[in-house]
Amino acid sequence: MSIAIVSLGTEVVRGELVNTNSQWLAEAVSDDGFEVSELVSVADDHAQIIECLTRLAGRNDAIVCTGGLGPTTDDLTTEAVAAMLGEPLVLDEASLEHIRQRFRRAGRTMGPSNEKQARFPRGARILSNPEGTAPGFAVTIGQAEAFFMPGVPLEMRAMFEAHVRAALPRRGGESVVHQIRLNTFGQTESAVNDALAGIEAEHGVVLGYRAHFPEIQVKVLARGPDKAAAAARAARVADVVQQRLGPIVFSRGTTSLAGAVGELLEQRGLTLGVAESCTGGWVAQLLTENAGASAYFAGGVVSYANQVKHDVLGVPEELLAAHGAVSQPVAEAMARGAHRVLRAGVALAITGIAGPSGGSEEKPVGTVHIAVFDGTTLLHEKCLFPWDRKRVQLVSAFRGLSLVRQLISG
Amino acid sequence: MSIAIVSLGTEVVRGELVNTNSQWLAEAVSDDGFEVSELVSVADDHAQIIECLTRLAGRNDAIVCTGGLGPTTDDLTTEAVAAMLGEPLVLDEASLEHIRQRFRRAGRTMGPSNEKQARFPRGARILSNPEGTAPGFAVTIGQAEAFFMPGVPLEMRAMFEAHVRAALPRRGGESVVHQIRLNTFGQTESAVNDALAGIEAEHGVVLGYRAHFPEIQVKVLARGPDKAAAAARAARVADVVQQRLGPIVFSRGTTSLAGAVGELLEQRGLTLGVAESCTGGWVAQLLTENAGASAYFAGGVVSYANQVKHDVLGVPEELLAAHGAVSQPVAEAMARGAHRVLRAGVALAITGIAGPSGGSEEKPVGTVHIAVFDGTTLLHEKCLFPWDRKRVQLVSAFRGLSLVRQLISG
Repeated sequence: MSIAIVSLGTEVVRGELVNTNSQWLAEAVSDDGFEVSELVSVADDHAQIIECLTRLAGRNDAIVCTGGLGPTTDDLTTEAVAAMLGEPLVLDEASLEHIRQRFRRAGRTMGPSNEKQARFPRGARILSNPEGTAPGFAVTIGQAEAFFMPGVPLEMRAMFEAHVRAALPRRGGESVVHQIRLNTFGQTESAVNDALAGIEAEHGVVLGYRAHFPEIQVKVLARGPDKAAAAARAARVADVVQQRLGPIVFSRGTTSLAGAVGELLEQRGLTLGVAESCTGGWVAQLLTENAGASAYFAGGVVSYANQVKHDVLGVPEELLAAHGAVSQPVAEAMARGAHRVLRAGVALAITGIAGPSGGSEEKPVGTVHIAVFDGTTLLHEKCLFPWDRKRVQLVSAFRGLSLVRQLISG
Repeated sequence: MSIAIVSLGTEVVRGELVNTNSQWLAEAVSDDGFEVSELVSVADDHAQIIECLTRLAGRNDAIVCTGGLGPTTDDLTTEAVAAMLGEPLVLDEASLEHIRQRFRRAGRTMGPSNEKQARFPRGARILSNPEGTAPGFAVTIGQAEAFFMPGVPLEMRAMFEAHVRAALPRRGGESVVHQIRLNTFGQTESAVNDALAGIEAEHGVVLGYRAHFPEIQVKVLARGPDKAAAAARAARVADVVQQRLGPIVFSRGTTSLAGAVGELLEQRGLTLGVAESCTGGWVAQLLTENAGASAYFAGGVVSYANQVKHDVLGVPEELLAAHGAVSQPVAEAMARGAHRVLRAGVALAITGIAGPSGGSEEKPVGTVHIAVFDGTTLLHEKCLFPWDRKRVQLVSAFRGLSLVRQLISG
């Protein structure tokens, strides 16, 4: 059962926008157990559209297509499909009325160009658009069922859920897929790959790897005769994966590292305060992405200038003078200061050289000191990262959150 | 001159990530005057990769391809291309050494799976990877030049700029394109579009619009017989565009709003300090993305909990009790506090309700108060944003930086 996903539009092939429709559709149909053969985008061009659809219809069971249903002269999808099928375009009165009403509700009158949005290839099944103007339609092209939807994401998703998702042809007897994603931080993609050698063959699953800097995400894809069987197998293998990888696994699904640390803090009734220099507020931003962060995040001090390390965090000037801002003593003093000033149960401090300038022979770019303090225990870590500024900042934030996780996990 | 852009990877066809590589490449080659015939993604599958590349090579002058050069068993690109060309894979010693050194610099040892990243089809031209591990390569497939790059965006872009962009085959006689991008914040896409009505026809250029929340970017694309002519026309029209749009234009090219504000601060010899509540560190992070931020950014206080607003910024408890944290008096007190505590020339404070919880009838989700203070002048703005948490946080950060820009521009 093979599905091709098509995104029609010159603005897409010119790179004028990022195509989220194809990704959203691909994920949705993959989660439903279908196999996506390809994602393709072609321009608003009559001949190219016909050629593309013809090719795909010859090798897929279904084609899901977005774009080109608008009122302008650029919008050629419906015409091209009708020509391809050798069918005339027929006016659908119900669609015309729907369009007229949408304009009325917005206090406008329908224009002549909008009338074309109510014409469909004879024999097409019309798909109503609950969120917008243009209805979509479905036709059979050779052996494939083809569905045509608007390019506006909100409208497309609503139409997909209402009319297309359940209508995708199943041959029956297909197995159902269940996937579990494990998120890791701390090892390279190849080390993770090596650690999981043999699991696919032994357990009859597929493992997918995604490097999403600085995380490595491992996805376990299991098939089964039904959802429960597939889910049970996926869960079993996910546990095997987690056991092999150890503590570098910080969460499953869509929970971020900051979110996972937040859950641990909340479970223990602790609050976190951060003192950031080179990460410049990124740790705080990662923590506050999540709704409910106020349950475990007190706040932070972005002590970018040294005087702020001294004035707000109480780092002694002698320490700054003797060791420099990027040093173990200053990192530890920042952590103690944040713990006190923010009245946090746990404090995290990060000070380093993100680059590209600021490095020296003794302290090259990428040198980062991290300290965590909970009132009793003080942990410190010195890192040396070989990346550009933005990646040094992000991986330092991750290493800091990892050290917090380490401290509070005991 | 036709180019096809290919993104290889099962995670792409399964919709596990949004494919920004194809969009970035499509935009880059379109800007250079090439015509993109299609964007296509297929899975990590030997036969599918070969079939796709064979089809595209028969109808394009160039194929630009990303993905599948990693060390894992999923990464099949190089193998598939070699098989397609009937060439063996040959070890390139220089690439092997490059990979070994990258691991050494990160304090790790290269694994066996990384060795495969140094093997290429015999006869391939190897493209070095300045930003990462895996080199890319280029080969001729029939009439087409095909370029293969890593899927990691940062690495891909660097390799493209260094080795591919100038190597794309030109037949000659094409006009040259020059583009200038103007970045705006503060108006909707349709308002910007309406304001620029008629410019395309009058000046013989193409205007492209991209909504990249919360910015609207306007691209002026001018053609000419040579680069100088195209550049001159683009510059002239860019000035017309800027004049029509006014102060919502905050920069050109790739300078962010935070970067533009930084430039203004540095020109005036001012430093900025920030007090953030609902934006949770995002303003500080946007400012410190840029190298050299220490010239104009003192630091910030992420006063997420109310006690931090009081303890660190000196916001009086009576104010918090009487008006609540999300109010004009508290925003102004936070700005004054940041100005004093961070010893900044200018201070910015943001306090609001990002949601999804925390709203009330009096102060619904999306209510945000912003204040800026320079020791003499105090500006305040109350906003009501109709978006989700992340977008409320981001647009608040932008409005805050805009208010700083307004204050220091006089």
